[in-house]
Amino acid sequence: MSWPKNAWYHAAWMHEVTDRPLARTFLNEEVVLFRDADGKAAALQDRCCHRATPLRLGEVTELGLQCGYHGVTFDGGGTCVMIPGQDAIPSAARVRAYPVLERQEIVWIWMGDPALADEAALLVDYPWLDDHEQWPHVHDMYEVECSYQLLIDNLMDLTHIPFIHRNTIGGGSQQGQVNATMDVTPTETGVHYIRWMENIAPPPTYVKGAGFAEGTMVDRWQEFEYIVPSTVVQWTGALPVDLGAKENRVQDGGFNLRLYHGVTPRTDSSCYYFWTPLNGYKPHDPEATELLYKEIAFTFNEDLEFLEAQQATMAATPDLPLVNIKHDKARVQANRALEAMISGDGQS
Amino acid sequence: MSWPKNAWYHAAWMHEVTDRPLARTFLNEEVVLFRDADGKAAALQDRCCHRATPLRLGEVTELGLQCGYHGVTFDGGGTCVMIPGQDAIPSAARVRAYPVLERQEIVWIWMGDPALADEAALLVDYPWLDDHEQWPHVHDMYEVECSYQLLIDNLMDLTHIPFIHRNTIGGGSQQGQVNATMDVTPTETGVHYIRWMENIAPPPTYVKGAGFAEGTMVDRWQEFEYIVPSTVVQWTGALPVDLGAKENRVQDGGFNLRLYHGVTPRTDSSCYYFWTPLNGYKPHDPEATELLYKEIAFTFNEDLEFLEAQQATMAATPDLPLVNIKHDKARVQANRALEAMISGDGQS
Amino acid sequence: MSWPKNAWYHAAWMHEVTDRPLARTFLNEEVVLFRDADGKAAALQDRCCHRATPLRLGEVTELGLQCGYHGVTFDGGGTCVMIPGQDAIPSAARVRAYPVLERQEIVWIWMGDPALADEAALLVDYPWLDDHEQWPHVHDMYEVECSYQLLIDNLMDLTHIPFIHRNTIGGGSQQGQVNATMDVTPTETGVHYIRWMENIAPPPTYVKGAGFAEGTMVDRWQEFEYIVPSTVVQWTGALPVDLGAKENRVQDGGFNLRLYHGVTPRTDSSCYYFWTPLNGYKPHDPEATELLYKEIAFTFNEDLEFLEAQQATMAATPDLPLVNIKHDKARVQANRALEAMISGDGQS
Repeated sequence: MSWPKNAWYHAAWMHEVTDRPLARTFLNEEVVLFRDADGKAAALQDRCCHRATPLRLGEVTELGLQCGYHGVTFDGGGTCVMIPGQDAIPSAARVRAYPVLERQEIVWIWMGDPALADEAALLVDYPWLDDHEQWPHVHDMYEVECSYQLLIDNLMDLTHIPFIHRNTIGGGSQQGQVNATMDVTPTETGVHYIRWMENIAPPPTYVKGAGFAEGTMVDRWQEFEYIVPSTVVQWTGALPVDLGAKENRVQDGGFNLRLYHGVTPRTDSSCYYFWTPLNGYKPHDPEATELLYKEIAFTFNEDLEFLEAQQATMAATPDLPLVNIKHDKARVQANRALEAMISGDGQS
Repeated sequence: MSWPKNAWYHAAWMHEVTDRPLARTFLNEEVVLFRDADGKAAALQDRCCHRATPLRLGEVTELGLQCGYHGVTFDGGGTCVMIPGQDAIPSAARVRAYPVLERQEIVWIWMGDPALADEAALLVDYPWLDDHEQWPHVHDMYEVECSYQLLIDNLMDLTHIPFIHRNTIGGGSQQGQVNATMDVTPTETGVHYIRWMENIAPPPTYVKGAGFAEGTMVDRWQEFEYIVPSTVVQWTGALPVDLGAKENRVQDGGFNLRLYHGVTPRTDSSCYYFWTPLNGYKPHDPEATELLYKEIAFTFNEDLEFLEAQQATMAATPDLPLVNIKHDKARVQANRALEAMISGDGQS
Repeated sequence: MSWPKNAWYHAAWMHEVTDRPLARTFLNEEVVLFRDADGKAAALQDRCCHRATPLRLGEVTELGLQCGYHGVTFDGGGTCVMIPGQDAIPSAARVRAYPVLERQEIVWIWMGDPALADEAALLVDYPWLDDHEQWPHVHDMYEVECSYQLLIDNLMDLTHIPFIHRNTIGGGSQQGQVNATMDVTPTETGVHYIRWMENIAPPPTYVKGAGFAEGTMVDRWQEFEYIVPSTVVQWTGALPVDLGAKENRVQDGGFNLRLYHGVTPRTDSSCYYFWTPLNGYKPHDPEATELLYKEIAFTFNEDLEFLEAQQATMAATPDLPLVNIKHDKARVQANRALEAMISGDGQS
């Protein structure tokens, strides 16, 4: 098994789930998401039990999700509630329903044993998503042709930034970024790390965002937390050196953003990457929010080329060894936390 | 086995088979069709016995079908009749030939044991194809990415019409169409059914075709016959309620068409769909024939989206059950007739 | 095994290997070629040993080829020479290197046991490639979706020319070309053959190139040598009948070209086809060289359609027999020479 089944996964942004069926594949299973006539989000297996037609081709009616082929209709719990031209509904006429949970702008889905699905099992709490006043943000999602693990690995090892992202968030001193201090701490739900680069030139994205004057040197931080199985939250930024960022990161005049990363397995070799950067430095400037979103969108596309190529090469050479280096410390911790969750999957 | 091999299948419309080789795949085998110098249709395995080059890249000469690579030539029976630069022809130099039969505008092919192939085994008789005077028609063929069985199933269960085709042949009262009476009768070669919808609003395609006045109510019928393994013939139409259609369907002032459906397995998960709608209501109006053809072409494209999605979902979930409903009666009979033919395949 | 591993294969034209990494697949293995800071060509497995990222996404630095993901760097021998942020380099940190050899405009690669790779094992000597004065030429490479063997077969049986290439190099008398005399001689490294067509009309490509007057008849030759495992060299041409070409092919007033064919297995069912036609009839006329290149490029594209179709049909019918004909003599000899090399692979 390459993922825990008994876990909440980010299925969609809340605004994506409407009365038009939305088809997605999670953990190799085809699912259709929709919002019923009462406004409640639901997730069903994307297969009518009558003739195996995908329900995504149907439509939401007052009664539920109606198959577009012959009109058989299911409520959000997967129960068949209507068969055209027939009064009795056979008990076998039902489709699998998946528990869903809506919180903080996210629709979460539980692909494992429904009996184990409760809100307490949701380990992610990210209140900033509900705060568009102080943390305005634009949502997005990329479909990536790599395992969700490779995408999480990417976020656990930031020495890639001065290489892949040398023209955006990784510009400036390559060696200075490589030499960042790095504090890694295991947590109950994963791993936390913080990197500091003191007295360093800010990268182009930061200059563009904060408007640092020519020649300004900054203290820059990258704080990340991985939460099993598939969430990474981030707070990064920089302040001019004279502001003492290490003691107090919350000051005007710098650049900082929070980033939410939700990485949901689609198939063994592909994933959905839900992300949103929260503008913490000019919250009342919609243009800054839009600019930040575009910069991050561009930056993540730089990653995708590498991740998809890495996936293909890794799949083609499964028996060759991999060699860890010093900067893999947080990644190795994250991998261990995930493996522990997979080992214990369903035994809680 | 998912099809009988010892049966005649619709390989092409007669006009499609010319002195230019035509490549098709039937029952997973690659075949090349051509018309020899005497005008006789022939079908060979699409593989030269010399170097396995497809014969479709060659050309028809006075002697037969000549491979385009080195010029080796075969007659319609698969016998090698010429090797460039060589007098003696080895007895092993031959390719497999498939029996073909031309009747009523159709070239039929026999993919099974040639010894069993005789004209009496052709169960389909459809004389209207030869009658362009009273039943003018345009021919077409769609390549569909679904099993031939799913396409036949589609024609055996017309409750899909008010759902998939709500804007063409299935418009008007959804419930009225669902509630049609349905008489299903097994036949020696398959199954026959007829559906009646009395005193119902005609669907948009019928109105367009017949020019029914605003508010006209009609008696509408759908008569279908399935003939194993892969033919469905249809006669459908409607007359204004005061004309007594149930007693006499052949009257002026209404709308009716015959439809020939020939569905030939291409691979396990794809088929050729040969079809032609025969204009029975305005036989002397070429524009009406053309309009009818276009309406049906559009309607069948609506089906394809569903059929191809159904094929993919069915293939992905082979172990999940399917639940029959009341309206599956004719489909179940057709499936049984086909299964019986497959069980007895080659034992006649 | 469908190819010998212990052999030199044409990996690239020398000018293709630069300080920008060049990714190719040889014998099913992904390789990256580059020229290091000293100008030396090198070939590494296209997979960083750190996280399996393809090295083709990196760049050449003073130290070697640097992975684009985290900056780990390897020299041309595959030794890791730098890990960002880390002084000690683990001994396991290395990637596989393949011996390469540069000679006569070609970069050759050895995919087998490096201990057996020496220059003496390179069986091809083609000095004309170094002579742009007397034998000017344009290089090209096609990626072809067929086994390298089918492409070599194509060059060993020229009766395909009056069929596939009837409009270019195979125009004129089809029977005259089929009836060419053919002398086949096994060599120590493969097979040699020469074909003569005396007193024959020259094909369109020859007329275009040499400017033969209307009605000129020529003596035409096709001389080919196959050198195991994957090289074919060719000298073809024609002189007006009164010049006695059979005794002396090197005369003004005719048409002749040399052609180098290097065919390297990419995968089991695809290959690289390196080729260059050397203008031997108007060496000081750059337009003639360009025209010759374009004619040959067009001609080879005529072959590709057949070769790729043949590959697909052969793969789909592995159990059906093939029937040799008289004109297969050189091809059969070439196949035997290759099989002998494969049998003895690694035992030299």
